Amino acid sequence: MMRDVAIVGVGMTKFGEHWKKGLRELISEAGIKAVDDAGISGKDIQLIVGGSMSSGIFAGQEHTGALFTDYLGLNPIPAIRTEAACASSSVALSTGVMAIQSGRYNCVVVGGVEKMTDVYGGLATTALAGAMDRDNEAHFGLTFPGVYALMAKRHMHQYGTTREQIAMSAVKNHENAMHNPNAQFHRKITVDDVLKSPLVADPLRLLDCSPIADGAASLIIVPADKAKQYTDTPIYIRASSQASDTLSLYRRSDITTIGATITAAQNAYKQAGMTTKDIHFAEVHDCFTINEIISTEDLGFARKGDGGRLLQSGETMIGGKIPVNTSGGLKAKGHPVGATGAAQVIEAVEQLRGDAGGRQVDGAENGLTHNVGGSGSTVVVHIFSRNRK
Amino acid sequence: MMRDVAIVGVGMTKFGEHWKKGLRELISEAGIKAVDDAGISGKDIQLIVGGSMSSGIFAGQEHTGALFTDYLGLNPIPAIRTEAACASSSVALSTGVMAIQSGRYNCVVVGGVEKMTDVYGGLATTALAGAMDRDNEAHFGLTFPGVYALMAKRHMHQYGTTREQIAMSAVKNHENAMHNPNAQFHRKITVDDVLKSPLVADPLRLLDCSPIADGAASLIIVPADKAKQYTDTPIYIRASSQASDTLSLYRRSDITTIGATITAAQNAYKQAGMTTKDIHFAEVHDCFTINEIISTEDLGFARKGDGGRLLQSGETMIGGKIPVNTSGGLKAKGHPVGATGAAQVIEAVEQLRGDAGGRQVDGAENGLTHNVGGSGSTVVVHIFSRNRK
Repeated sequence: MMRDVAIVGVGMTKFGEHWKKGLRELISEAGIKAVDDAGISGKDIQLIVGGSMSSGIFAGQEHTGALFTDYLGLNPIPAIRTEAACASSSVALSTGVMAIQSGRYNCVVVGGVEKMTDVYGGLATTALAGAMDRDNEAHFGLTFPGVYALMAKRHMHQYGTTREQIAMSAVKNHENAMHNPNAQFHRKITVDDVLKSPLVADPLRLLDCSPIADGAASLIIVPADKAKQYTDTPIYIRASSQASDTLSLYRRSDITTIGATITAAQNAYKQAGMTTKDIHFAEVHDCFTINEIISTEDLGFARKGDGGRLLQSGETMIGGKIPVNTSGGLKAKGHPVGATGAAQVIEAVEQLRGDAGGRQVDGAENGLTHNVGGSGSTVVVHIFSRNRK
Repeated sequence: MMRDVAIVGVGMTKFGEHWKKGLRELISEAGIKAVDDAGISGKDIQLIVGGSMSSGIFAGQEHTGALFTDYLGLNPIPAIRTEAACASSSVALSTGVMAIQSGRYNCVVVGGVEKMTDVYGGLATTALAGAMDRDNEAHFGLTFPGVYALMAKRHMHQYGTTREQIAMSAVKNHENAMHNPNAQFHRKITVDDVLKSPLVADPLRLLDCSPIADGAASLIIVPADKAKQYTDTPIYIRASSQASDTLSLYRRSDITTIGATITAAQNAYKQAGMTTKDIHFAEVHDCFTINEIISTEDLGFARKGDGGRLLQSGETMIGGKIPVNTSGGLKAKGHPVGATGAAQVIEAVEQLRGDAGGRQVDGAENGLTHNVGGSGSTVVVHIFSRNRK
């Protein structure tokens, strides 16, 4: 019988441009907030699992596990850095869950960090292209806006998804971010704003793209049996599921879907003993607007091809049937790649605690996070609940 | 009660300059050899945990977990990339052990890879410097030969360790590598050769330094209960232990010792219920010759300060009391950083199976591996045995 795992503390930095903060300051700020939130001290922590995607290129710093331990004052406990492109800190969480389930650890810090702004522009694109197939894609000039533009074009062609529907993801997420103090952008936009923004990779425009950002996010996880020692409102991890697909997009039979999302989600629903009907909100990986549409389909919230229409119906807005990206999503909350997965989880925890303020989903009992690495080569889905079973 | 874990298959590439092989080819070669050795098929594998240190800088490729899964033909199973500088694949093993212990997985591929040669020289030094404290060390010009040169100078000053004793590590390890077909160098050297080789960072010379290399190594691990289904000679993981210390060298109170080695080793002996007397051979992290001396002390094979004298006594040679780096060590087997930890484990497995040929330690029942990240910010110690208890 595997141990159940619960989250008893969370903390994150604001996402955005932090010109006076490096990896150390970001990690420390998020980590200390999480420790304070859990009401624990450093002595309670037995392991750190921290995700970052490309700290080597962005900041000249690998070995970020040891950096976490050192700058949180936790030596000599062990640290694991996980990397799975933009899903790095969701993999950190699933690894942390295994660590608790192994019986070796009873209190684990899981986190993620990325410091992306302090490089010249071309280097950021180069670093991020490390998430795709370098030899067969990036080497020939493909960029990530290009990857998702290919998916968007095909989705529009195959399912009649409109340019306007795609834009509505960004509009909704900017609206949601107005209520999230940790979001990078606090500025409402319109469909017209998206359609008039500069073209990046046809059909995607600037306001279809999540921004470069700095940030860190941390969680404290413990065995569910011990969670009430820490807090009256533990949030239980009901499913932790990960799947892989080809590193390159061109080797997939259908680029209007991300197969690893389907695999990871089906396994997650099974683990949790839930269906899509039991999920009250979802944080999905809108690195580009089109991916919110594709993901709501692959997660089962819309039939294949109907993601654009679901978005247009308003049912993914707060107050709708299945609110998506209440945090502002990657688009408006920001996307410091290694921190994104952990920050999605923090949104789930705040919603389930009833602490989400102006973006609260009424009566939320269960929520889902969906984090994609690259073009879908790695996908991690977690399901969280106020209830242990 | 935690599950015991056993190794039932191993495979590695030759270490060295592989000008016609990239990450994909290296991973595939090592992975397929390990799968063949275990007599399993891809369908049996449920998880990959793969270490690499700086594939982003060396090869423009992050997301190497997905690369592993993809190029071993194992989609959609999950993959975790671990990174802890030169200890990346030992952290992969400890993470894989947790994965088995969690009860979620019954057959895991653990591996490591690094492709280091196909970059211009300065970039390799830059990449490797990501293992130290970028902001406070590398930024001011410190390199890794410099880090270990500081440790060597102080060790010589404090304990009377001689330049000749330090050289003897390289001489022994080149001798051992003569019997290892996977080693990068098959060339005997003398103390005089070391002392006359070009000065790199005083007192360390070229032949004190482990080489840049390409390579990959893989292991198949399963619950000990199921190991005999796969092989008549499973090798049991009796201890898996990791510790952290400051990222930067200058913040340590004593640079003649690596505190994280002491912590990790003491914990490992306790886990295994063994003392140094029970260990019949050790693979230790000789990234630079001086570190073999420091490590044999910190692991308890010599009293503090006596590591040079232990080496000079011949007791760490094959046939001695405690053979060290029978594989040739990082110095002569080669040091493709992300693959090194897994390759140390392969040496332990071959010794314990009695398959080590001309470098076999007679009657070896238990062996230890010791893998260091950076200047000792991460240390992982594993103990292996022919016997389950």
